Amino acid sequence: MATVHDAVEVIIAKRDGAELSDSQIDWVVDAYTNGVVADEQMAALAMAILLNGMNRREISRWTKAMIASGERMDFSSLSRPTSDKHSTGGVGDKITLPLAPLVAACGVAVPQLSGRGLGHTGGTLDKLESVPGWQASLSNEAMLAQLEDVGAVICAAGAGLAPADKKLYALRDVTGTVEAIPLIASSIMSKKIAEGTGSLVLDVKVGTGAFMKDLARARELARTMVALGTDAGVHTVALLTDMSTPLGLTAGNALEVRESVEVLAGGGPADVVELTLALAREMLGGAGRSDVDPAAVLASGKAMDAWNQMISAQGGDPSATLPVARETHVVNAPSSGVLTRLDAMAVGLAAWRLGAGRAKLGDDVQAGAGVVWHARPGDPVTEGQPLLTLHTDEPARFERALASLDGGYDIAPAGTPFAATPLLLDRIS
Amino acid sequence: MATVHDAVEVIIAKRDGAELSDSQIDWVVDAYTNGVVADEQMAALAMAILLNGMNRREISRWTKAMIASGERMDFSSLSRPTSDKHSTGGVGDKITLPLAPLVAACGVAVPQLSGRGLGHTGGTLDKLESVPGWQASLSNEAMLAQLEDVGAVICAAGAGLAPADKKLYALRDVTGTVEAIPLIASSIMSKKIAEGTGSLVLDVKVGTGAFMKDLARARELARTMVALGTDAGVHTVALLTDMSTPLGLTAGNALEVRESVEVLAGGGPADVVELTLALAREMLGGAGRSDVDPAAVLASGKAMDAWNQMISAQGGDPSATLPVARETHVVNAPSSGVLTRLDAMAVGLAAWRLGAGRAKLGDDVQAGAGVVWHARPGDPVTEGQPLLTLHTDEPARFERALASLDGGYDIAPAGTPFAATPLLLDRIS
Repeated sequence: MATVHDAVEVIIAKRDGAELSDSQIDWVVDAYTNGVVADEQMAALAMAILLNGMNRREISRWTKAMIASGERMDFSSLSRPTSDKHSTGGVGDKITLPLAPLVAACGVAVPQLSGRGLGHTGGTLDKLESVPGWQASLSNEAMLAQLEDVGAVICAAGAGLAPADKKLYALRDVTGTVEAIPLIASSIMSKKIAEGTGSLVLDVKVGTGAFMKDLARARELARTMVALGTDAGVHTVALLTDMSTPLGLTAGNALEVRESVEVLAGGGPADVVELTLALAREMLGGAGRSDVDPAAVLASGKAMDAWNQMISAQGGDPSATLPVARETHVVNAPSSGVLTRLDAMAVGLAAWRLGAGRAKLGDDVQAGAGVVWHARPGDPVTEGQPLLTLHTDEPARFERALASLDGGYDIAPAGTPFAATPLLLDRIS
Repeated sequence: MATVHDAVEVIIAKRDGAELSDSQIDWVVDAYTNGVVADEQMAALAMAILLNGMNRREISRWTKAMIASGERMDFSSLSRPTSDKHSTGGVGDKITLPLAPLVAACGVAVPQLSGRGLGHTGGTLDKLESVPGWQASLSNEAMLAQLEDVGAVICAAGAGLAPADKKLYALRDVTGTVEAIPLIASSIMSKKIAEGTGSLVLDVKVGTGAFMKDLARARELARTMVALGTDAGVHTVALLTDMSTPLGLTAGNALEVRESVEVLAGGGPADVVELTLALAREMLGGAGRSDVDPAAVLASGKAMDAWNQMISAQGGDPSATLPVARETHVVNAPSSGVLTRLDAMAVGLAAWRLGAGRAKLGDDVQAGAGVVWHARPGDPVTEGQPLLTLHTDEPARFERALASLDGGYDIAPAGTPFAATPLLLDRIS
């Protein structure tokens, strides 16, 4: 029998800077999930955690308690090792789409339980749903069979994984307590550990378009999550990657699927290819398959085969024409020179306002909406050339999207020295 | 029209250490009172206030917003000045009972809106309700008439005063946010300012039996409340007084009424007389009547006359026999020597457990229950003499009451030097 505690006792302990005991953490997470601890009590505790912190043991125990609140998946019956990737979210971040089939083609199974987008960063499921016929929901049995046959699954996380996290996340959203690193880290890791992957690579985004705006806090979050994974027996590595500039050349659902298919076909923007290969190497390393070269597998066309199988297995038609927005609006370069900055948040907000994202859970998204940019920082531009193309089904959306792009890019005179921000900023293992 | 804010915006501002604007404070207090801001949002804000504080302007505005949430009383039509006293609560603290009629007999009206006890410190209304026939509830008109005729009213605060505080206090109680000085100070002062008194004396208790255990925090609370009163145009003074030892020789409802009547009759324990006169002098000074000597008025019997009128005006019979508990249990001194310590919290808990207090709002209290102590720190005691007498209607309560007295007093060998703690510790004006 678990010890019974009292909500006020637990709140006061954290409020006064004490460490919470294992027993206090187990009790409060379970009691909150079951409605014994009220929302207002958990809100006060979340604020005390945000302001006073938790140490590694406390965060680890909190994560375990959230995992224990629900079911846990088990892929140990598969004939190959498993590896998963989680990104903290960025603009134009379609990496999961080429990455999962690439790693599957390398012999490692990828069980990707994903979510839908909320806010200015898109959701992987929203992107894949722009493929005609593709279904996000799979039973656990179908998921296991697809992992064995195809090697890659991208599907919706069931309601059974870490229900404590689901309830707590909704509470944090309305009580100003989203930004607590212990709570962010345990929220992500409870779902990933419950999902049952053998190894995990975290892509922690840093910059204007990311949740973490500065490197120090991103590093703290990455270290916390790597420690949590390690404590739970999951081989975990984190890459810190730049999100001051959006990834690739597109942000939007079908637009990003198209770009991902280009990468699988051996083309695509250099930064998307670079990050896909870097993450694939980490996933293969974590699964004990460092001997496989993902660049060679990508070049061989086997990753594209895996993509086609993965899409078909979930009802999608990989050869179907992707949806296109009904209206476009082109923003031309106002002067000639060098593009020195393209702000990820400005582009992300524009894509969101064009209809690629949703304002609240349950809203529909437009498959064709989004932004295409025709130059990346460092590229030369000529006055009057197309710089950005905005896509939407509803032209009334252009005005607010254009407003969010105002001040979102800089063009300097030709010859101005330009130092590109590296894409890979750090690695935490 | 007040500016409309967003709960998360206000919470995040305080969470990140910013000052809240007047407009944010007005909005959040009003929106919480009206249910627009949810309990979980106010709980997160209360925790952020507890941990990050509020400055004098913020606390003053918060107090004004709580006053504005309800009705405000007005005693300007009275023929005499008004003064009130508030104690932060102590064990054996019956001072209001002799003080209100004494100050009334000195020519200053005392509008005492009181509460019931919760926890180990008794409530003034609970004490007076042990007088047969006495009624706590009065209409505003009856209160005004009694203030004009008798000069003193002790009655229940109506639901119309500072409803925001009522709702917030109940929330703080279950979310570990009671101990925030800005919230304690604004809670007390919003009710006292809304009550409409012209001047106010605060008795801030310090010590084991008080809410504030150390002098530094008690001084901070006193300074905060004096500033709030001053900002609202109420002449306000605070005395910091010792509550490591219980006041007088009794804790319990009818027991304390009996002791108060002894004081009004010219007798009673020296410390109760000392504190009553000190607070009376402050109240008279605040009301511009420093010329009156309360000691002379007490000796004249006029304070007893005012008591009799005050009790009769509210339906009570001042000559009726007070209730007595059905059972008593005597604790004898275990050794001879000097009583060097009698712990206020131990005595308060014992009286509470004997039935003098309630565990939750709405519980009944016993009129006769409580503790009488036969020696005060510094007094000589002889082995086997009665040291404490416990009173209750239910003998099953003795065991837990005795347990709370365990370790609650010290007897040192005769001749051991003893330095009494002064009753009056500081004065803040």
